[in-house]
Amino acid sequence: MKVALVGFGTVGKSVYDMLEKAEGMTPGKVLMLPEFFTDPTFQTTDYNDILNDPETEAVVECITNAKAGYEYARAALNAGKHYVSSSKAMVAVYGAELNRLAREKGVAFLFGAACGGSMPILMALSQSRQMDEVLSVSGILNGTTNYMLDAMQRKGCTYEAALKTAQELGYAEADPTADVSGADSLRKIMLACAVSYGVLPSEGLNREGIESLTAEDVNHFAARGLVCRLIAKGGRNEDGSVYACVEPVLFGKNAPESSVLDNNNLAKSVCRYNGSLVLIGQGAGGDPTASNVLRDLVNIRAAYRHYLPADCKEGTAMNDACLSRYYVRVDGQDAGLFQAEEAEQDGSVCRIVTAAMPVKKMHQLAADIRANGRKVFFAAMAE
Amino acid sequence: MKVALVGFGTVGKSVYDMLEKAEGMTPGKVLMLPEFFTDPTFQTTDYNDILNDPETEAVVECITNAKAGYEYARAALNAGKHYVSSSKAMVAVYGAELNRLAREKGVAFLFGAACGGSMPILMALSQSRQMDEVLSVSGILNGTTNYMLDAMQRKGCTYEAALKTAQELGYAEADPTADVSGADSLRKIMLACAVSYGVLPSEGLNREGIESLTAEDVNHFAARGLVCRLIAKGGRNEDGSVYACVEPVLFGKNAPESSVLDNNNLAKSVCRYNGSLVLIGQGAGGDPTASNVLRDLVNIRAAYRHYLPADCKEGTAMNDACLSRYYVRVDGQDAGLFQAEEAEQDGSVCRIVTAAMPVKKMHQLAADIRANGRKVFFAAMAE
Repeated sequence: MKVALVGFGTVGKSVYDMLEKAEGMTPGKVLMLPEFFTDPTFQTTDYNDILNDPETEAVVECITNAKAGYEYARAALNAGKHYVSSSKAMVAVYGAELNRLAREKGVAFLFGAACGGSMPILMALSQSRQMDEVLSVSGILNGTTNYMLDAMQRKGCTYEAALKTAQELGYAEADPTADVSGADSLRKIMLACAVSYGVLPSEGLNREGIESLTAEDVNHFAARGLVCRLIAKGGRNEDGSVYACVEPVLFGKNAPESSVLDNNNLAKSVCRYNGSLVLIGQGAGGDPTASNVLRDLVNIRAAYRHYLPADCKEGTAMNDACLSRYYVRVDGQDAGLFQAEEAEQDGSVCRIVTAAMPVKKMHQLAADIRANGRKVFFAAMAE
Repeated sequence: MKVALVGFGTVGKSVYDMLEKAEGMTPGKVLMLPEFFTDPTFQTTDYNDILNDPETEAVVECITNAKAGYEYARAALNAGKHYVSSSKAMVAVYGAELNRLAREKGVAFLFGAACGGSMPILMALSQSRQMDEVLSVSGILNGTTNYMLDAMQRKGCTYEAALKTAQELGYAEADPTADVSGADSLRKIMLACAVSYGVLPSEGLNREGIESLTAEDVNHFAARGLVCRLIAKGGRNEDGSVYACVEPVLFGKNAPESSVLDNNNLAKSVCRYNGSLVLIGQGAGGDPTASNVLRDLVNIRAAYRHYLPADCKEGTAMNDACLSRYYVRVDGQDAGLFQAEEAEQDGSVCRIVTAAMPVKKMHQLAADIRANGRKVFFAAMAE
């Protein structure tokens, strides 16, 4: 199978390398922006060189510009080429539409590397949707924030020191907002929901990152034997609607999530028959991500065409029907907003474990407190 | 897709249930032994009812008799039906032959549930073999022994008490030999090697179970912050040969293996590009195992045909080229057999951590010591 590439960054280069070695696969042309074009033997600046090559069966795209990725995808699918994307930002916005187009054209549209990096979680969810029932999916889907949380817990770093080291190691961008705000994790869980439920939730989502976490909070968790992780989660409510959110969660030391160190990722599915299935692996990096792109190509060669169901459409997350107990750190004057199961005064600060409450309500209360100029940190208590 | 069944035990019944609910799948006839035949509406005692039904595309077999399973497989493949087996004992002996027959007939032969229960580890390895390089595969592949090891560690049970509880819970058979001796785990790692390397190792294997473990040993591990797990492992030596063995391994508390509690299983692959990928899930039970059978059927429907490569053949494990440091507990008079990095006298007993030594040599020394009527326990030290 001859496979062309769009993008030749860290992931694209690893994909090219793997294509040269994999049995029965060959790299086709690589589409480059004119300013990066260096080698006409395998590069091109004209996408038509790829679209019009009858031997090229599939196009792999590894770029970050979502709008451009969408245009490349449309053109490739319309030309009858299978399309594999590693871009979560692109699929989170245009996935449902491209799924319809790919099915109409009878070609594949897969994006395994866009959620979970090296871990074949979307493939597992796609299979489970076809024969089991996905009750929930969750995970540590951002390596940068996990590195920071682990450094704060095991090395006693402050938030600022942990972020600085993550940047020095190349895990975090100069502007780390997409990571620490949970936006990157949220896009990935949107994809997991689309694969599991045929609903790509684009509204009603809740997202809380780790920006409000302090070293003092981490000390308090440690004293209770708890470990903080940034968790993206989605699932079905009892009424059949879908919830999806990102928020910090506190786990006991024996939970698999607590064993995920450094910049590793974890994805967990709970299905009616299959039970709980946990995957732990690298969530980013050239080679690990490329290996999941190649997995998609192996699937395409085996005639696996779609992760999304035929009727996948955009929808609204219903996070008011999804309950959790929360650990909350607030100013004493805000403590009365919560129904407390446990409460501890610590100077002007109050640390509370709430009764079970809707996800949506917790995120709304935190927004209200911050709108009043005061501080709050919260994390769900793992069941 | 219409799918017939051979066997209607715990797994077979769950498979039937899932087939009734899965979109685009229907259960065909179920082959029963005459003494268990109860309902002619969906059962039969004549395999020809299945083989001669043109609508039946696939046969699922969930029985324990390996020779009978082999005969059913041969007949089904010869009749042009896809074949899915959950029987590790059958595939460990006849897998290479049935793979050749299935490829000759152009039909599928898959057995995802035969290694890892609910976890799609063979699918992941099969994909990695086609586009990456599997450096090693290992795991906790027996739930009964993991339950026992966890109970000894966390509840302070003796070996005998842990075994008794495992039997009461239905995890262990009345004769638990296949579990506690490591034989069950060994069959599963043989399958994983066949899928990863195209070599089904049938000779040169080493196997050490948990029968020599005492509560006192577990106390010693705990004092060093170590957790004991029964690990099946296989991989490539530097010279390209394949190793495969089962033995206890000691892990630090942060290792994912240490977070695997009760009767859960873990499978870990390490690939050149994909890096380390860990799966944790249920390794047995009707519904979890059935879900992996259905996963194979979804794969078949997507035209995925084979986990084993075309040239898969039987071979010899080369365990002298694979090194590990070992924790060894022996009588003082046997201590001199080992090159010790650490040693501790404990009454008449000596506890040693050895320098790196070949797997094969460690297993051979233990056999020699036992042949002399003395006791020994050993466990590899995780890297």
